[in-house]
Amino acid sequence: MVKLPFFILTLFLLALGQSPAAERLSDYVRPFVGTEGEGNTYPGPSAPFGMVQLSPDTDKEIWETASGYEYSDPTIFGFSLTHLTGTGIPDLGDFLFVPQIGEAKLMSGTKGQPESGYLSGYSHNDEMAAAGYYKVKLQKPGVTVELTAGERAGMMRMTFPASDKASVLVDLEHVLSGKKWKVVWSHLRIEDNATVTGYHMVTGWAKERPLYFAARFSRPFDKAEIFSEGKPVIYDTYRFRSAKEAMGPSLRFLASYQTKEQEPILIKVAVSAVSAQNALKNLEAEIPGWDFDGLRESTRARWDRELARIKIEGSQEEKETFYTSLYHTFLAPNLYEDVTGEYLGFDHNTHKAQNFTNYTVFSLWDTYRATHPLFALIQARRDADMINSMLAHYDQSVEHMLPIWSLEANETWCMVGYHAVPVIVDAFLKGVKGFDISHAYEAIRTTAMNPHYDSVATYAKLGWVPFDKENESVSKTLEYAYDDFCVAQMARALGKKEDAAYFSKRADSYKNLFDPSVGLMRGKDSFGQWHSPFNPHSYDETAGVNDFTEGTSWQYSWYVPQDVPGLISLMGGKEAFAQKLDQLFTFKEADQNKGVSDIQGRIGEYWHGNEPSHHVIYLYSYAGQPWKAAERLREVVTTQYGNKPNSLSGNDDCGQTSAWYIFTCLGFYPVCPGSDYYVIGAPQLPKAVLQLSNGKTFTMTANHLSEANKYVQSVQVNGKSLDNPFLRFGELTKGGTVVFEMGPKPGSWGANPQIPK
Amino acid sequence: MVKLPFFILTLFLLALGQSPAAERLSDYVRPFVGTEGEGNTYPGPSAPFGMVQLSPDTDKEIWETASGYEYSDPTIFGFSLTHLTGTGIPDLGDFLFVPQIGEAKLMSGTKGQPESGYLSGYSHNDEMAAAGYYKVKLQKPGVTVELTAGERAGMMRMTFPASDKASVLVDLEHVLSGKKWKVVWSHLRIEDNATVTGYHMVTGWAKERPLYFAARFSRPFDKAEIFSEGKPVIYDTYRFRSAKEAMGPSLRFLASYQTKEQEPILIKVAVSAVSAQNALKNLEAEIPGWDFDGLRESTRARWDRELARIKIEGSQEEKETFYTSLYHTFLAPNLYEDVTGEYLGFDHNTHKAQNFTNYTVFSLWDTYRATHPLFALIQARRDADMINSMLAHYDQSVEHMLPIWSLEANETWCMVGYHAVPVIVDAFLKGVKGFDISHAYEAIRTTAMNPHYDSVATYAKLGWVPFDKENESVSKTLEYAYDDFCVAQMARALGKKEDAAYFSKRADSYKNLFDPSVGLMRGKDSFGQWHSPFNPHSYDETAGVNDFTEGTSWQYSWYVPQDVPGLISLMGGKEAFAQKLDQLFTFKEADQNKGVSDIQGRIGEYWHGNEPSHHVIYLYSYAGQPWKAAERLREVVTTQYGNKPNSLSGNDDCGQTSAWYIFTCLGFYPVCPGSDYYVIGAPQLPKAVLQLSNGKTFTMTANHLSEANKYVQSVQVNGKSLDNPFLRFGELTKGGTVVFEMGPKPGSWGANPQIPK
Repeated sequence: MVKLPFFILTLFLLALGQSPAAERLSDYVRPFVGTEGEGNTYPGPSAPFGMVQLSPDTDKEIWETASGYEYSDPTIFGFSLTHLTGTGIPDLGDFLFVPQIGEAKLMSGTKGQPESGYLSGYSHNDEMAAAGYYKVKLQKPGVTVELTAGERAGMMRMTFPASDKASVLVDLEHVLSGKKWKVVWSHLRIEDNATVTGYHMVTGWAKERPLYFAARFSRPFDKAEIFSEGKPVIYDTYRFRSAKEAMGPSLRFLASYQTKEQEPILIKVAVSAVSAQNALKNLEAEIPGWDFDGLRESTRARWDRELARIKIEGSQEEKETFYTSLYHTFLAPNLYEDVTGEYLGFDHNTHKAQNFTNYTVFSLWDTYRATHPLFALIQARRDADMINSMLAHYDQSVEHMLPIWSLEANETWCMVGYHAVPVIVDAFLKGVKGFDISHAYEAIRTTAMNPHYDSVATYAKLGWVPFDKENESVSKTLEYAYDDFCVAQMARALGKKEDAAYFSKRADSYKNLFDPSVGLMRGKDSFGQWHSPFNPHSYDETAGVNDFTEGTSWQYSWYVPQDVPGLISLMGGKEAFAQKLDQLFTFKEADQNKGVSDIQGRIGEYWHGNEPSHHVIYLYSYAGQPWKAAERLREVVTTQYGNKPNSLSGNDDCGQTSAWYIFTCLGFYPVCPGSDYYVIGAPQLPKAVLQLSNGKTFTMTANHLSEANKYVQSVQVNGKSLDNPFLRFGELTKGGTVVFEMGPKPGSWGANPQIPK
Repeated sequence: MVKLPFFILTLFLLALGQSPAAERLSDYVRPFVGTEGEGNTYPGPSAPFGMVQLSPDTDKEIWETASGYEYSDPTIFGFSLTHLTGTGIPDLGDFLFVPQIGEAKLMSGTKGQPESGYLSGYSHNDEMAAAGYYKVKLQKPGVTVELTAGERAGMMRMTFPASDKASVLVDLEHVLSGKKWKVVWSHLRIEDNATVTGYHMVTGWAKERPLYFAARFSRPFDKAEIFSEGKPVIYDTYRFRSAKEAMGPSLRFLASYQTKEQEPILIKVAVSAVSAQNALKNLEAEIPGWDFDGLRESTRARWDRELARIKIEGSQEEKETFYTSLYHTFLAPNLYEDVTGEYLGFDHNTHKAQNFTNYTVFSLWDTYRATHPLFALIQARRDADMINSMLAHYDQSVEHMLPIWSLEANETWCMVGYHAVPVIVDAFLKGVKGFDISHAYEAIRTTAMNPHYDSVATYAKLGWVPFDKENESVSKTLEYAYDDFCVAQMARALGKKEDAAYFSKRADSYKNLFDPSVGLMRGKDSFGQWHSPFNPHSYDETAGVNDFTEGTSWQYSWYVPQDVPGLISLMGGKEAFAQKLDQLFTFKEADQNKGVSDIQGRIGEYWHGNEPSHHVIYLYSYAGQPWKAAERLREVVTTQYGNKPNSLSGNDDCGQTSAWYIFTCLGFYPVCPGSDYYVIGAPQLPKAVLQLSNGKTFTMTANHLSEANKYVQSVQVNGKSLDNPFLRFGELTKGGTVVFEMGPKPGSWGANPQIPK
């Protein structure tokens, strides 16, 4: 927790018109959560959904440290300007700033031999992080670095010891490369005696990603140098070569200073995907002066406002866990538009966003599940703009496709399905305003009909993706079927009966891959033959030959969110279905799987550390056994979330793992986005008040909730008793109340569910 | 000469309101002139000062074939969209289009083994070129390719034989690389079933040069493929990868067709330095339809209009030589601005040209001599915009420098001096309107005072560039001194007396390097010691250690255009000066110099194939011996110019070598741009009428001119006798006449010159 000197805090709070005693929700944010192990979050500052994320990098090669920072690493490379939150694949980490004392090192050195380069040791005792703020003391140079961030621009405050040889290196070749990505080209320009701009083109997860930066230093450089391929760029006495600009694949800028003891040097930084000029405009527009603390406070106040969309009661630890989860949910997607309104389009032309704000980083296979459904409730304006951004992507796509996993004007084609569809349909059905509905329908329909994408054409014809033609055939079939249900939902609402019928039929395709002889989903070839031999626990993502996407048959067989009654029926009725679910949580077989070390949170073959499991616990409520859901939800909430660096069991995946926690605490979850109901599980907090985007307030109360009282005894919705464990969206958004009575034993509540259609 | 079918020709001429019998000046243009040997011109079509130059490439590696085409090469790679005219260093050659029949080859093969790739043989019998048009039949595929060009967009018409396997390859990796340059990144997008766009970033002579293209085919592709690193970009059954777009350093696009006998496929092409979107806009704006012949005719008509700025009398060969020279002079600098007004600035930001048209390719060490002075007379609007373009470059330069040798948003720093200064000052003094004079003065003064550029600071202090600190020290000193004279001229005209005095003093610096003991210019070190040993014929550009820039002491010792009387005095008076000049034309010593094979046109140590010699013959007129000038001028005009591919003796250097010819034919030459007079040599045509940019007409008549009558007997300017061999600018631009009486023997005309101050 960050503690400001009291008098400064007082000033800030007075300025905000708040009494010093007022609770600031941002104070509960613990940015280190998820930085140790598999969470893949970063601790540095970002504004909500911001374009820059200034953060320390401790690793750039290991995929398991995709955000650049691993809490257990002993050394820091420096501080780069952009980071992904919770992804399983590294990228970004653009433009590394490194303070040094003594002869400046140009190369980083390696973790094992930090002395060979600019890597520095640090101690967590000298480190702190808060919403919008990060601080660390680098031991090698003895420089304290503080970071804060606005939306497109941030600031660094580096406090130096007295030295004749103090410096700040900007390494343009540093990226979170995972050993595979690289900078293919870059340039640098020393614009004046305190300003440098530059650019690099990175080929990475995003295949062609140009980014520009601008940096303005609070003190004119004593000396400013550029290094190319490790050699100083100097005039060579033959014919003139500027020492003030350079181009090439390996560039570094070095600002040198003579510093006094405890001398702070501030650096304003900004990025743009469009031009260096725009990076400078972003910098000047957002940070006109040199008020580091003012920027920190204004970003903190932004976080206070965003986090206040849900006000909870709970213990200190619960509040820290909850608001850190909400913070993580609000880090991505990221603003991707300059103050001029310009952004780099998917077609790599510069576009001007007309009547919307452009966002990027759409980890849709993850975030369609709970993140966007949460946005539809409490971030509707942003959700609409994210949809507008996806529609712009569609317009600019040569494949006429909505994004699959898009990253800064690139499509990574990561994961399967076309899950922009449920995001759009869920927002549409939940009344999110601010996007063109007919344009959106055209886009989702065209995407779902694309004959080039995977085996969609074959799937549409056969009824399944044949494993002899296509990898991950079962997962693809199941996910397409769910997405198709969403298309049908929107078609129906728009009165497009033929489309509704067509896509409803496709939504039933899951039935074609259910093998009654094994009671599970199983690959089928183009001749209709089951995949043999068949190991329902097999998980082999590394070989790339599995019928399942990051999962096993036992994990994926639950993936029919659009028709759980149908699945229950295939599995032999509610009782058999519930017993099968019980089995899932006890398997040990798949634990030996290799190549999936970053998916933890394992309870039998239920792996909470990856998304295919996220809805599964809630299926107990469909089966009339919500008390089993209550038990498993409590288990996951208490063992796989918390306020510690290692609290997350798997990738946060741009906020999806955190959004699961938010809904679960509230007592319900969107098992099937694109439908109008949530599934009730069991609340994990005594009270929560949601400021809905429609202007209304929704209040959840869980009476008598305690460690022991984890079971729902009864539910009152807007004053009426609800025995069916499904909460209609309309009940929630009319500005309602849900009151849970909690007790120490499973009751009969929810035992006879009527599953909504 | 291109012959259109008569009825089409008739139609065109009728459309132009001309009778079929009317002379079309474009018919005299012989684009092959300079393509054999050292001229380094290209034969393909370009609009006047156009942004695209579609032309066949026969070589991409040899520096001596910097334009991509060498007449004696037996094979053609294909047809690329951009070319430099007459430079000594290769670059451009962007986006090569190659028609093929049979299994498409992706790699070019080599000249020695064309069968290994797409290289094809051709015959000059199947080849023709005219202003705005080129045609060749490629023997290997049997495809006839015709090219024409508008300003930013061009067209290809490929006439195929009947084939199941006809194709057009677009090779993005091809550039005129000179073995050193390369494509560092590229992308391709198949926009629709007949359109492809792409981009590549080339690091070449221009260090970081991005260029986009768009191509639209008249027939939808039967098949469209992308190849990356030689492999087809296809969906790989794992997770989707678009076959319609790709990124990487080695990309090729292949459009395949089944063709009928004699089937024409047309391709519209355009480029942009800003974006693919802008390339498409350029294409659509300039070529809305599919009228190849219409575009060809409209460009031909543009050439007719431009060439009509000088109307001459003369033989067919003289007209061909003259109008080809004028054509070459009007090929560069090149338009560098999209139809939107946007261009890529020197700071690599996108700018919008405000109230001017942006140009690039400033080969200033060459073109300040005669090209820009010619523009000041007959292309004043363009000359002003070229100056505006140079001022934009200055504004965008981190070094606060005007261009030295700028190429598509890059500074190559090629050659020495700061010769944007004479271009600007000459235009200013000659009344060229349309640029900001105070801005221009600030720019030339700041450039001349730049402490980082070469040894300007030391030169300003010492009075010379010391050879122990700096290469090419003598040439630099002499050229700075001349440029400084120009600054002083403008300062004086603007009433800036201190500046005028300061730069006038610097203009005298040449005196510091004249060694009276050898009667020549000689290197001096920072202690004031002459460079010893001293070989006045030494030329060693390859070792990079010479005191002279592409020249010898004997060649550079004449370089004092701003103060020829001073030089005459140093050399011992007019008689000694003239004798020394005589000597120059008889030396043989330097002929054995290696590494300078591309500078031919050698008459003793006078080498007309390179610019340092260009003004030298005219120095006879200062010495009172204009008849010797007349002899040497006639010798050069008849032996080093003509209408044949091998007619040019050295690099055309963006038109400078051709502009020398234009002035020389008119009978006078701008020995000292930035002064108000021309030096009279001897006219080479019986009559020429100039349409001056001020709206007036200037007429030169040479009575009794013949092979024998090469000597000027007398001159009448505006009806008054002129015995002094200098023509004042004011006499010319008032709309005057110059009448030369020519005779077979040297007369006494010009024997007592009064050199203008």
